[in-house]
Amino acid sequence: MALTDLEIAQACVLDPIDKVAAKAGIPADALEPYGRTKAKLSQEYLDSLDAPDGKLILVTAINPTKAGEGKSTTTVGLGDALNLLGKNTMMALREPSLGPVFGLKGGAAGGGYAQVVPMEDINLHFTGDMHAITTANNLLSAVIDNHIHQGNELGIDPDRITFRRCLDMNDRELRQVNIGLGPKANGIKREDGFNITVASEVMAALCLASDLQDLKKRFGDMLVGYSFDGEPVYARDLKVEGAMAMVMKDAIKPNLVQTLEHNPVLIHGGPFANIAHGCNSVIATRTALKLADYVVTEAGFGADLGAEKFLDIKCRLAGLHPSAVVIVATIRALKQHGGVAFEDLKEENIPALKAGIANLEKHIETAQAFGLPYVIAINEFATDTAAEIGALETWCRENGHPMSLSQVWAKGGEGALDLAEKVIALTEQPNDFEVLYDEKLPIEEKIRIIARRVYGADDVVFTDEAKEQIAEFEKHGWDRLPVCMAKTQMSLSDDPTKMGRPEHFTITVRELRPSLGAGFIVALTGKVLTMPGLPKHPSALDMDIDGEGKITGLF
Amino acid sequence: MALTDLEIAQACVLDPIDKVAAKAGIPADALEPYGRTKAKLSQEYLDSLDAPDGKLILVTAINPTKAGEGKSTTTVGLGDALNLLGKNTMMALREPSLGPVFGLKGGAAGGGYAQVVPMEDINLHFTGDMHAITTANNLLSAVIDNHIHQGNELGIDPDRITFRRCLDMNDRELRQVNIGLGPKANGIKREDGFNITVASEVMAALCLASDLQDLKKRFGDMLVGYSFDGEPVYARDLKVEGAMAMVMKDAIKPNLVQTLEHNPVLIHGGPFANIAHGCNSVIATRTALKLADYVVTEAGFGADLGAEKFLDIKCRLAGLHPSAVVIVATIRALKQHGGVAFEDLKEENIPALKAGIANLEKHIETAQAFGLPYVIAINEFATDTAAEIGALETWCRENGHPMSLSQVWAKGGEGALDLAEKVIALTEQPNDFEVLYDEKLPIEEKIRIIARRVYGADDVVFTDEAKEQIAEFEKHGWDRLPVCMAKTQMSLSDDPTKMGRPEHFTITVRELRPSLGAGFIVALTGKVLTMPGLPKHPSALDMDIDGEGKITGLF
Repeated sequence: MALTDLEIAQACVLDPIDKVAAKAGIPADALEPYGRTKAKLSQEYLDSLDAPDGKLILVTAINPTKAGEGKSTTTVGLGDALNLLGKNTMMALREPSLGPVFGLKGGAAGGGYAQVVPMEDINLHFTGDMHAITTANNLLSAVIDNHIHQGNELGIDPDRITFRRCLDMNDRELRQVNIGLGPKANGIKREDGFNITVASEVMAALCLASDLQDLKKRFGDMLVGYSFDGEPVYARDLKVEGAMAMVMKDAIKPNLVQTLEHNPVLIHGGPFANIAHGCNSVIATRTALKLADYVVTEAGFGADLGAEKFLDIKCRLAGLHPSAVVIVATIRALKQHGGVAFEDLKEENIPALKAGIANLEKHIETAQAFGLPYVIAINEFATDTAAEIGALETWCRENGHPMSLSQVWAKGGEGALDLAEKVIALTEQPNDFEVLYDEKLPIEEKIRIIARRVYGADDVVFTDEAKEQIAEFEKHGWDRLPVCMAKTQMSLSDDPTKMGRPEHFTITVRELRPSLGAGFIVALTGKVLTMPGLPKHPSALDMDIDGEGKITGLF
Repeated sequence: MALTDLEIAQACVLDPIDKVAAKAGIPADALEPYGRTKAKLSQEYLDSLDAPDGKLILVTAINPTKAGEGKSTTTVGLGDALNLLGKNTMMALREPSLGPVFGLKGGAAGGGYAQVVPMEDINLHFTGDMHAITTANNLLSAVIDNHIHQGNELGIDPDRITFRRCLDMNDRELRQVNIGLGPKANGIKREDGFNITVASEVMAALCLASDLQDLKKRFGDMLVGYSFDGEPVYARDLKVEGAMAMVMKDAIKPNLVQTLEHNPVLIHGGPFANIAHGCNSVIATRTALKLADYVVTEAGFGADLGAEKFLDIKCRLAGLHPSAVVIVATIRALKQHGGVAFEDLKEENIPALKAGIANLEKHIETAQAFGLPYVIAINEFATDTAAEIGALETWCRENGHPMSLSQVWAKGGEGALDLAEKVIALTEQPNDFEVLYDEKLPIEEKIRIIARRVYGADDVVFTDEAKEQIAEFEKHGWDRLPVCMAKTQMSLSDDPTKMGRPEHFTITVRELRPSLGAGFIVALTGKVLTMPGLPKHPSALDMDIDGEGKITGLF
């Protein structure tokens, strides 16, 4: 029987973290260790880095099946392969959220022989960053309600508080709650709800901040709600941004860990990929670029969401210039885009595969639209047939698209040597990277550009509510920010059932939310769940730890 | 102007944690470092310890003023003094809760020149233990509600769930909440509330557990509520104790830090002193006893609560045998017990002081009741007059009570050399330590023994609700556990306005709660707030961190 991800990870004898650091050129005294195999990099060291930037490689994907395409796994395997080729390479990844670990999804540190370790720690509390975010978020919430309870000098309207509490747990019970019940000493009665911590604006702000002082300013800029007069109230009006920044003093430092092949990885920050931008922190990416010649990173969901936001939001705000894009696809997902049901994806189906390639083609066009060279990485599954892989290879060759079969899940870095060579070649060409829109354009215009050029939509429909919000945002001067699209990841359209490459459709924007601390406007095209629930049989019920500290049931 | 606690702490050049460890005889490879100046001790190392136990010294206090008597400060100063006298001494302290740091109370790592450092880290996230407790608690909550939402096989009555959610924040809004509002997908609608994390039963269980497997069993034993048939439902019925233990895999290891004088301190666990027993973990105390010849520890609130529960609960369950008790008193508190208002405590008032000594006398009798030798430590304040201190000294001398003036706040260990010498002398006498009651007695009997012998009450009144609960507990076989009294700390009685040594009073027990995972029955004599609120001007609003990472406003 095949080993589980956890068993593979537990069989790895980890290098001490100072040895991993040395490989990345980081001196031991720059480390703030968390145990023997995890460390944060000290602020002094981060401030001292001034080498020229390495090359930035983005790993993105087609619209996935519900099992995911394997972006993290490909990112880790590609990074290991570049190291095998003698290239000084680091990876920059997102931190997993604790909540889904207890549900169905499990952990998020790669898979098979392309994993980041210590897997258990990374998926549990890691170095405490998530908990610091929860604390900063809920401190702001407590201060908002306390301000109202203690006299409400700012005249905050309890019915118009937009900032929610958060918890790093899959807990549907907390999506919508009434708080402040009971006697008057229990505070004001109002409706609230909890987001999962990765959906907190504190997380998005952390991931786009350049340093702690910038993060403090972003905290101050957060909109918490409106006064009875309809005026915006910001966190800075409550004077709480200093304490929030203090709470984040360690969380702002990136975390160093290693792959199964002992190569250095920075894991730092992991915002939602719908109501936020879905990328690890700017600080981690910038640090890796100073330390390594090649930096492999990823962005959440498919390229329509992940790559677009990585490029239009993160690269724009941080002044990053990527060198290449890897588009991960699976034979399984291509067949699903060609009309095959999830249960039947194990069966060979060449016609469906060929039909489903249309989805891949659209994401290729997206890379081209941004002016970036790309390579397709087929993340191999055991159920893929030679005929299926051959059919895809033929299409790629005939259409002039570079492509590589990636076997990192089964083989680690050895499984991506060809991919790594192709990526190196891409990064040696100059490119014409450009963001898709000028952020000073009106909000509607920015959304139309994304919907047409990235999703292939004919047009965008704005609901009356959305139009009113846009007018309101313009009044407050919030309209000159990049747009963060919240859309289903399952389809290029806003309808999760439309597979392949939908045509002649419109995108409906139902609601807009100002994430002023993060520095973007969220455009919601449907209901977005910011607090997941647990399934009928949560993974947590199968987890255990024995007398020797060995964990089972985590995956 | 006098330096603040934070300024004194920031002026300290900390020893690297391996140097502190070496002083305690702990090898470097037994450390799991968290940064450069904090570490957990590895499980392998803890398991390997088999030296004979050192001597255990409990620091307790009279009923305090609202500013506290300085138990932590005295514990740290006495430990430093014992080290100055060449005695191999460690301290075992409670972990501060993050919530009150943002409120009024500030941190809890000693004060003046008797502090534990790094003060900022200890008062903020420290090594993440609190956050792990929050996670374990809320995982259980999410699983309970999810079980009901997904079909409720166990038939749990949503109106009789006794286990609450928690958060490490002072947030009155969360004391009483309605959860699961909105559509059916948001789960079941019911009433719930959040405790502050230190009031979670997970914390109490951690602090009484002997190791992780014992903690897992305690988690399984926790009562979560009742079925529609009125039968108890335990966490083990939900099969979640394995995941909860996994979440606590690092939190169960004690944390090593240092005093301002670079002496080793274990800080681990910090349960509420009302609905829980208010002492650091058994694991930390046992570890310190293996490592040091003298271990100084503390228990929350005055001796009527803290010492009684330390001795009757912690020492009973862990088989600990203390060697001496230090009873901390301030001239200020004695004057308050003699009838002086809090605002007037700065003024000399010998008659009030003499009257207030009755309170101290009762706590001396408590130490005697447990068969333990004691010394009175007067924690000196700048406002104390020589005449006041002289009057107290005279009373002690005339009545044969050992006493020492402690100046640790101003002088550190140097300020407690006399106290340390007196403590050493006490520990050299054999003692007749005995718990006050047999835990197999009926619940009412156990409570009567505590109320009469420790509080000086005439009798105990049980409300009808309490009587019904006792009958219910007996039915389930929960009555043979020690009792954890929840009573005001301000008075020996259950009326916080009764100062001095009240006489001819009864204690009213209004409610009982089974803390089956912790291993005790809580008896509530009044309303106990398990979720504090923020004051009109929370300390958080004055906190900040600058570009060099320097924190201000934390105290």
